[in-house]
Amino acid sequence: MAVNLPQPTEVSPIDGVKLACASTGIRYKDRDDLVLIELDEQAETVAVFTKNKFTAAPVDLCKQHLRQTKPKYLIINAGNANAGTGKLGTKAALATTEFVAEQMGVSANQVLPFSTGVIGEILDANDIKQQLPKLENSLSQHNWLQAAKAIMTTDTVSKAYSQTVLLSDREISITGIGKGSGMIQPNMATMLAYIATDLEIDKENLQELLSDCVEQSFNAITVDSDTSTNDSCVLIATGKTQVSYQSLTEKQKSTFRETLKKLMQQLACAIVRDGEGASKFVTVNVQSAFNIEQAREVAFSIANSPLVKTALSASDPNWGRIMAAAGKCRDENLNLSKASLSINKTQVIHLGELAEDYSEQLGKQAVLPDEIELIISLNQGRSECCVWTTDLTHEYITINADYRS
Amino acid sequence: MAVNLPQPTEVSPIDGVKLACASTGIRYKDRDDLVLIELDEQAETVAVFTKNKFTAAPVDLCKQHLRQTKPKYLIINAGNANAGTGKLGTKAALATTEFVAEQMGVSANQVLPFSTGVIGEILDANDIKQQLPKLENSLSQHNWLQAAKAIMTTDTVSKAYSQTVLLSDREISITGIGKGSGMIQPNMATMLAYIATDLEIDKENLQELLSDCVEQSFNAITVDSDTSTNDSCVLIATGKTQVSYQSLTEKQKSTFRETLKKLMQQLACAIVRDGEGASKFVTVNVQSAFNIEQAREVAFSIANSPLVKTALSASDPNWGRIMAAAGKCRDENLNLSKASLSINKTQVIHLGELAEDYSEQLGKQAVLPDEIELIISLNQGRSECCVWTTDLTHEYITINADYRS
Repeated sequence: MAVNLPQPTEVSPIDGVKLACASTGIRYKDRDDLVLIELDEQAETVAVFTKNKFTAAPVDLCKQHLRQTKPKYLIINAGNANAGTGKLGTKAALATTEFVAEQMGVSANQVLPFSTGVIGEILDANDIKQQLPKLENSLSQHNWLQAAKAIMTTDTVSKAYSQTVLLSDREISITGIGKGSGMIQPNMATMLAYIATDLEIDKENLQELLSDCVEQSFNAITVDSDTSTNDSCVLIATGKTQVSYQSLTEKQKSTFRETLKKLMQQLACAIVRDGEGASKFVTVNVQSAFNIEQAREVAFSIANSPLVKTALSASDPNWGRIMAAAGKCRDENLNLSKASLSINKTQVIHLGELAEDYSEQLGKQAVLPDEIELIISLNQGRSECCVWTTDLTHEYITINADYRS
Repeated sequence: MAVNLPQPTEVSPIDGVKLACASTGIRYKDRDDLVLIELDEQAETVAVFTKNKFTAAPVDLCKQHLRQTKPKYLIINAGNANAGTGKLGTKAALATTEFVAEQMGVSANQVLPFSTGVIGEILDANDIKQQLPKLENSLSQHNWLQAAKAIMTTDTVSKAYSQTVLLSDREISITGIGKGSGMIQPNMATMLAYIATDLEIDKENLQELLSDCVEQSFNAITVDSDTSTNDSCVLIATGKTQVSYQSLTEKQKSTFRETLKKLMQQLACAIVRDGEGASKFVTVNVQSAFNIEQAREVAFSIANSPLVKTALSASDPNWGRIMAAAGKCRDENLNLSKASLSINKTQVIHLGELAEDYSEQLGKQAVLPDEIELIISLNQGRSECCVWTTDLTHEYITINADYRS
């Protein structure tokens, strides 16, 4: 029951990126669960990974391979995260890259492996190996939507978006797919996201663009405050348009950056809209904070409060819980005596006091829609932070009490 | 459906402390919701309060009065927290103390006011005033159990315990009552707790004893990671036994301290056992950590993880979620490659690898009971931290989606 999230029906192919899907049957029956992505030789690739210290084996191997050389293939399996699998997990991730390398005639460190799904089960790389001939034969620029479906786990809707922007009289495309629904409070990236553009960008600028945009997209969402062991976000620039980022004016660079950020926010918000059990999509917008750290702490404290989230699920304008969640932050500069709060533009608290024309009836009206924006103005400075989250419902408990069974 | 938490049937009176209960009807019908506590003139009283920055009016007033003089009366109402009520809330708290002062012939700053219940509703001090003659007439040393019941909100079982210890041939008693069930991750104290002893202790030592014991009792529990606006924990020493703390040997002092800590842990754990929707009582014991901050961060990260808590509610030995919750800590020294994990003495992870004789069947057996102990040994040092929590159930959602309606 995703919140206002239609299935994607069309995205732009990116010259220099081919994809193929197959079904291993490792966990899911009658659906694809394996994706191979082939990159043009000129493509630059950068990535950010989870900061969870219980990292999955493929995450460690990706980091190692990215340090060594330029990737040529990405292999992604869904259903088994190959996390918490110790030495056997490391072996399985390595074997996966070796099998792909052998099939496609490259070296193993030109292959980046990604896994998502249940933690703690041993991955058998042979299940992946068997599908490689089929994958090689079906590589195509037009398989983005199929790939978005194949990487899903508890997702109910696939996530794929495109943006285009005109730069130096050439149409530049950006296309991205992502997956994620639970264990979502990314700390560098969401569970899995792959974004490609046909702009030509050097590795250094590409990494800087990714790190910058991730802060206001994947690092600004939470479903349940839990950070995944497998979070990875990959950004690819194939350069096939032969328009170079470095040749752009500052204004054009900024336009491209904003377009990329917009696409990443679409993907990140799609993950929240499809959050496990979500019945509401909630924007928490903290304004006029003392500094960005304070804004961020207050925003996430509200977005992760079980009491706020259950109240919202019941359309209860329980503003006391919202203010109490703000108040539990440890930031020593935080002062709520001048704070204001609005729910979907209905003013609830004004400068620390209940707003004069607020009534419980108005509050109930304000909190009824399935899209809720909370604006908390701290009146302490000029910093702001916007994060996106869900409510907390019976369905979340049902999904997570049953996920492995 | 509290977890293994019987109703208390008997506690020791404390010479120098009298209590009385009444019913205001502010929120609850047909039950007591108001408590007056009278202290002997010699009694020393100290308290710790919530660190939530959205503090309730009575908390602010308590702090002010405690700085000014020695308290003679405590007045506690349940059902309305008088929090988030701005200037009107401050007026109501002050009026409450003035009414008690007038009735009992003391000054207003000798009265400490406490409120617990719904946030954001205006408290009418006249509702309390009307009950004061009845309260004055029914003060008795034997009303601890009634008082424990009268301060309940979403609690399903009242919380009252006694401990006695023989010091210098005199039996010293400690009796405490507490309340709390949701919005529980105290940051100095739980919602409300009142503890008294007949030992004679000077204010400085009393404060130090309270602060020390609170760290390993009320500050070591969490139900839902939300910190209340009204948390207060009060410790009273009446001195009526005429045994003085300062005259004790170091060993006797330590015995008293341990006895006090034990009682505070009983009260704190009772709050967890009665946690909203709880079906399991969970002990998270982090051992051999690099330092106490690391041990504490890991313990609370696991204890507050919605994914760990829902898995436990379903008796799913989903150890991957436990390790992932540990891994999301930001502590830069944290290294999980040598970590071990056991669930109710069943070894799951041994030095970073799945234990050789572990099987899913063994894990399922281990996680079945309604009392679960997770021991996480980090093998990074000598520090440890033990916290107590609940699972996360449908019942929690039901309670908190409906609490105000």
